[in-house]
Amino acid sequence: MDKSLSRLVDQFLDSYAQCGGINHIDGANLPSKAAIAQLTLDLLELLFPGFHSGEPISNQVLPTLTLTNVEDVLDRLIREIRKSLEYRPVAGKEAEAVAHQFLCKLVDLRCILQTDVEAAYEGDPAAISTDEVMVAYPGIEAIAVQRMAHLLYQEGIALIPRMMTEWAHSRTGIDIHPGATIGTHFFIDHGTGVVVGETTTIGNHVRIYQGVGLVARSLAAHTARDTTGAAIGGKRHPTIGNNVTIYAGATIIGGDTIVGDRSIIGGNVWLAHSVAPDSIVVFESQDIRIQQRGRSTLDWQI
Amino acid sequence: MDKSLSRLVDQFLDSYAQCGGINHIDGANLPSKAAIAQLTLDLLELLFPGFHSGEPISNQVLPTLTLTNVEDVLDRLIREIRKSLEYRPVAGKEAEAVAHQFLCKLVDLRCILQTDVEAAYEGDPAAISTDEVMVAYPGIEAIAVQRMAHLLYQEGIALIPRMMTEWAHSRTGIDIHPGATIGTHFFIDHGTGVVVGETTTIGNHVRIYQGVGLVARSLAAHTARDTTGAAIGGKRHPTIGNNVTIYAGATIIGGDTIVGDRSIIGGNVWLAHSVAPDSIVVFESQDIRIQQRGRSTLDWQI
Amino acid sequence: MDKSLSRLVDQFLDSYAQCGGINHIDGANLPSKAAIAQLTLDLLELLFPGFHSGEPISNQVLPTLTLTNVEDVLDRLIREIRKSLEYRPVAGKEAEAVAHQFLCKLVDLRCILQTDVEAAYEGDPAAISTDEVMVAYPGIEAIAVQRMAHLLYQEGIALIPRMMTEWAHSRTGIDIHPGATIGTHFFIDHGTGVVVGETTTIGNHVRIYQGVGLVARSLAAHTARDTTGAAIGGKRHPTIGNNVTIYAGATIIGGDTIVGDRSIIGGNVWLAHSVAPDSIVVFESQDIRIQQRGRSTLDWQI
Repeated sequence: MDKSLSRLVDQFLDSYAQCGGINHIDGANLPSKAAIAQLTLDLLELLFPGFHSGEPISNQVLPTLTLTNVEDVLDRLIREIRKSLEYRPVAGKEAEAVAHQFLCKLVDLRCILQTDVEAAYEGDPAAISTDEVMVAYPGIEAIAVQRMAHLLYQEGIALIPRMMTEWAHSRTGIDIHPGATIGTHFFIDHGTGVVVGETTTIGNHVRIYQGVGLVARSLAAHTARDTTGAAIGGKRHPTIGNNVTIYAGATIIGGDTIVGDRSIIGGNVWLAHSVAPDSIVVFESQDIRIQQRGRSTLDWQI
Repeated sequence: MDKSLSRLVDQFLDSYAQCGGINHIDGANLPSKAAIAQLTLDLLELLFPGFHSGEPISNQVLPTLTLTNVEDVLDRLIREIRKSLEYRPVAGKEAEAVAHQFLCKLVDLRCILQTDVEAAYEGDPAAISTDEVMVAYPGIEAIAVQRMAHLLYQEGIALIPRMMTEWAHSRTGIDIHPGATIGTHFFIDHGTGVVVGETTTIGNHVRIYQGVGLVARSLAAHTARDTTGAAIGGKRHPTIGNNVTIYAGATIIGGDTIVGDRSIIGGNVWLAHSVAPDSIVVFESQDIRIQQRGRSTLDWQI
Repeated sequence: MDKSLSRLVDQFLDSYAQCGGINHIDGANLPSKAAIAQLTLDLLELLFPGFHSGEPISNQVLPTLTLTNVEDVLDRLIREIRKSLEYRPVAGKEAEAVAHQFLCKLVDLRCILQTDVEAAYEGDPAAISTDEVMVAYPGIEAIAVQRMAHLLYQEGIALIPRMMTEWAHSRTGIDIHPGATIGTHFFIDHGTGVVVGETTTIGNHVRIYQGVGLVARSLAAHTARDTTGAAIGGKRHPTIGNNVTIYAGATIIGGDTIVGDRSIIGGNVWLAHSVAPDSIVVFESQDIRIQQRGRSTLDWQI
């Protein structure tokens, strides 16, 4: 072996030993990023059979196929949840029971997701059918994954929920924390840059566009935490009522901010206080200057 | 078989039977997401031979390689277009003819795409060569895919065009609807968060930055549709003239909004009306407050 | 062979011959996108052993595993750097030496990256542990890749650094140019839409949110370049001091703009001039109008 290569390897080994915190050797067996990614994809196929696979599924093969998929997904889910519970135990929870109950709840989730698909079709003039929404709308994938992750979040399962939503974030640009509570008929159009924080509450029939942020008011320099690592403090993110529409780039901020039912928040608005039901919030005037090129020194000074 | 597992599978099967609309069983054979993704990647290789493959291509092997690639792509393209036409027929169209004509048009598309590569190189001081633009600029991938999808959109082919642009959207954060009509020398820099709507028209030599939205004015609560599912109504998205530059985060809105040739739209501007040729649109004053930390109660109240 | 197919292939071959600039046939062997993607992923595993793999790593196997990984990565790195140096030579540089020195510097980089992980954990109330930051925070992946790419950028290696950061951009929505100089304890939260330009300088303990742009003031219609293709001109992007926080959607613009230490830049602010240390920059008033639905013609005119 090359001497310089040997020295290089020794340097890495020294670094692994000294500089902890970003490697995970001889530690608890964390859930695997690759395993969670594949699991999330397979859970989507269980929710929407036939939509992600290349071949159509006949009613004849459906029972056998579903049995195989459920067995397979359950097995891997138990393995990853077990790692999570070893990493951070939750009193009274066992991996088998959590995984089984999770799959039971997925059945009910299918009805909620159907309302999301309907809302997308009704909300977007460019959509030609609910099938198109299913195969081509990133918002559906993002909300489906978040609703699944939320079920595990509610059980107190560490790491996996956030790994699931980050998988969707990477694919869609839509970042919804597993902790957010979201009503029926939720429609995210385009979606890139959407951020929905952990303690957000969203009502039914809400519609948001690309770049919308439902975020915390501010951050102290150092976060106060309890002994489990969870942040101390209550609701940090806003509450959105029913039938609210929030246009592209708008930011709604703060745990005590409530947007009343049927309100409309205009694009790019920065809203840090509550508004009553039926409010319309827009810029009074945008105070922009329009002038002709070549008549001032303003040119290119943008 | 475990009894609770059996019950779980039954619950899924009941749900598939009752809660339709998000599964696709015994229905028409929809185009496959995975197949469209691979096809789009292979079409990019046909457009830009040698750039996406690991190995260089010699002029000697090029004829054989091109033949193989064309045959292979054509075959899969026909299969997916056939599914689309079964799903929503287009009068007088057959999959073979549509696929063949599409590939013929790709030859011409190469010359248009060359103008996009040139525009990126000329527009970005950080670009060291057109080769770098090809291997590292997401905007080129997004516009190449949209220009291909637009050809199929013009033929009335359902689902596939949008699946192609959503594949690119997922990879680049750039969401250009297949319906948009885009001139030569189009440059998108950075690109994350860009949204270009279905009925947008863009001239030649246009340059846009990250977060730019060319979007519809508003949405009625329920979209009026004709019998094919298409939205009723005309142009919903803006018209951009030639030689226009639109800086990061600007939103241009409405089907009757025309941005005249050679205009410059400043960052974050929200423009909902037409501007004459040679206009410069910027904030008059931004009305920001700058103060020192620790001297007010403003601290952290952002 | 089908005659029309044969004509189609001939048309492609003619186009490849005539329409150059976007194909790369018989040219220098460019670095491969697929190879750089896999290499970057494997370099991340070398930086963070055990975090990206499915299985835990014991201290017993670590020496052998590290040797294998280093040898494997080094080999492929040399191959890609050799292509880059053939494409654009750098005086006095050889692929073997550049690759070897690069891996040596990675050892030191691990300590810097540890400060980034700490900053993320301290900065985000939603983070439950540094492990969660490692497995689920896209900002860590983006900054790790940029710090690696920056090392190669400093050596003058063409194409590869930008291909690495664009790989991360595609996965995270975070676009940091390899040229940017970034201090310790850097935290990017959410991250989608972040753009950090080539000549940006960032101090220690800086925190930025989704949609933040550190960008150039303006672009001349055609970029002046030297004989190597590099843009002529100095610093185009801002300088950010230590302990600065920049909230979502803010844009800081221009090579002469300096944001003083400990400053806070509010969300959506567009800042084109320097601010002193300890500045807080927010909108004075946002000038929004709030009214009730149904009482005006404003409804839906957003």
